[in-house]
Amino acid sequence: MPESSITVPEPTTAAPMDRAATRATDSPRPTTIVEAPRLAAHLGIEVFLATETFQRTGSFKFRAAFNLVANIPHPHVITASSGNFGQAMAYACKLFGKRCTIVMPANSARVKVDAVLSYGGRVDLVDTTKVKRSARVAQLAAEHPEAYIASAYDDPYVIAGNATLGDELAALETPPDAVVVPVGGGGLSSGLVQAAQRATRRMSVIGAEPLMANDAARSLRAGHIVVNEVEPQTIADGTRTLSVGQHNWAILRDGIETIVEVPEDAIREGVRLLFSLANLKAEPTGALGVGALLTAPDLFADRRVCCVVTGGNVDPAVYTALVAPGS
Amino acid sequence: MPESSITVPEPTTAAPMDRAATRATDSPRPTTIVEAPRLAAHLGIEVFLATETFQRTGSFKFRAAFNLVANIPHPHVITASSGNFGQAMAYACKLFGKRCTIVMPANSARVKVDAVLSYGGRVDLVDTTKVKRSARVAQLAAEHPEAYIASAYDDPYVIAGNATLGDELAALETPPDAVVVPVGGGGLSSGLVQAAQRATRRMSVIGAEPLMANDAARSLRAGHIVVNEVEPQTIADGTRTLSVGQHNWAILRDGIETIVEVPEDAIREGVRLLFSLANLKAEPTGALGVGALLTAPDLFADRRVCCVVTGGNVDPAVYTALVAPGS
Repeated sequence: MPESSITVPEPTTAAPMDRAATRATDSPRPTTIVEAPRLAAHLGIEVFLATETFQRTGSFKFRAAFNLVANIPHPHVITASSGNFGQAMAYACKLFGKRCTIVMPANSARVKVDAVLSYGGRVDLVDTTKVKRSARVAQLAAEHPEAYIASAYDDPYVIAGNATLGDELAALETPPDAVVVPVGGGGLSSGLVQAAQRATRRMSVIGAEPLMANDAARSLRAGHIVVNEVEPQTIADGTRTLSVGQHNWAILRDGIETIVEVPEDAIREGVRLLFSLANLKAEPTGALGVGALLTAPDLFADRRVCCVVTGGNVDPAVYTALVAPGS
Repeated sequence: MPESSITVPEPTTAAPMDRAATRATDSPRPTTIVEAPRLAAHLGIEVFLATETFQRTGSFKFRAAFNLVANIPHPHVITASSGNFGQAMAYACKLFGKRCTIVMPANSARVKVDAVLSYGGRVDLVDTTKVKRSARVAQLAAEHPEAYIASAYDDPYVIAGNATLGDELAALETPPDAVVVPVGGGGLSSGLVQAAQRATRRMSVIGAEPLMANDAARSLRAGHIVVNEVEPQTIADGTRTLSVGQHNWAILRDGIETIVEVPEDAIREGVRLLFSLANLKAEPTGALGVGALLTAPDLFADRRVCCVVTGGNVDPAVYTALVAPGS
């Protein structure tokens, strides 16, 4: 796979949560802990689940969006997202009475456009065969100098918002020894590392990245950020990023224990196992952690493992094709 | 539909929970509260979910089985169940070191037999074209005088175990005004009524019963237990009972506010809505409550409603056929 390297700036101190804002009644919900003894027995690993599928807007992204919107003075947020971050940002902006523009490809699934609209976001459709999404965002930024341009991962507010999930896991009566978490741009994994570093008890963070989108694993090996030249078409569409972000890399490079590279078949099997052995509806990206347990079981021996299920928003056609018998 | 009436005995005082036993590490898990704002907006009802899909063995039945096994001196439990009660009883008996025999039809789905076996139960397969399940249970009871013959609903221990769910709902920071709950044999609904009657704040219990298996609704209208002559083949297979039990009826007849009769299409739509708007995998029986909200929305106006999702154990083929686009 073609790759290139970029210069990495000095680490940035992550922004703290705004405590006043997070007392709002619509602040992020605590994660949902699901004991899954049949899944654990099947895998032969002492694992439980922390699922964000019941988080507001159906994924952990609301933690990031809420913290960002709570902490910026800007009246308007612009971001490019066809997935969970767009929905989360639209809803967070609605809660704080701010405007929100989500740039999406013109060929986005109707259900995704509708979800953003249902949370009160404005959708800006762009024909990506003619104009790059980043170019359209730049154009909108020039037209709206009052707006904050939000990255779904490469932003201290995003990382700090996601870190609240790690704080919750560290505060459990019996905290996990290791947390397994999907890696795309690195927004959640870097947040969990941040939380682990301030926890009173050791808690390792292990990444789960699609093998066919393994830029973060390659970055760890190379010692610098490695960039995909094209967006990898993994079924775990929440990880279709060109590379981890710079703020994320600054935290991950020394903070993450390792990254398991998960074949597509193991991601699919993860979705099926969560359905059949844990009664949990997960999107493919959310099943990456279980996929990592299937791929590298020895890594998790003799540890109490928490597998983060990041979200549950999945097209019914995609989901039923994955879960149907004989698939 | 043919019906007959039977004599109803005096109400029985339900057995209290054994507090020592319920401190066991494997006691029932608290229910999982899921806020579902998109579902609430779609229905136009202020509703949230209490889901038992993540309860041990995947349904509320474990509450009943655990309480029963904890309170009886018998070393062996025999019950007829091809569904959730069988799995729950097998697991509860395993926890308490008791023997368990589950009588199931010989044509039961392999996945259901395997589930009971995986929890350590002994499966007794009976050819129901030749021998009635109740006859086989009676035969086993004669062979094993040391065994307790357990009903899945018509038993004070079962009712008291299920009542713990109602206690949890009554203890919420903002308790519901009304709880909507599937009605089959009446084990859960009578337990919820029992909890509501000892709650400090008014909490109505409303039943949700398949229209094609509406013996409980007809019983309420008739003022006595009405019995189906054949097991109704509703998709909500957890409610395929001939009638409510006598202990249940004694509690329900004056304690339940009303029972909504839910058409099969509304049950199916309930499964789909829980999937698409709440990220929740529910079995058809578990979607009866949402089906009731769809069927009689006016009943729930201006009330804070809790919809109990009773279980999530569903065959993948059945589930994907329900959820697939265009179904």
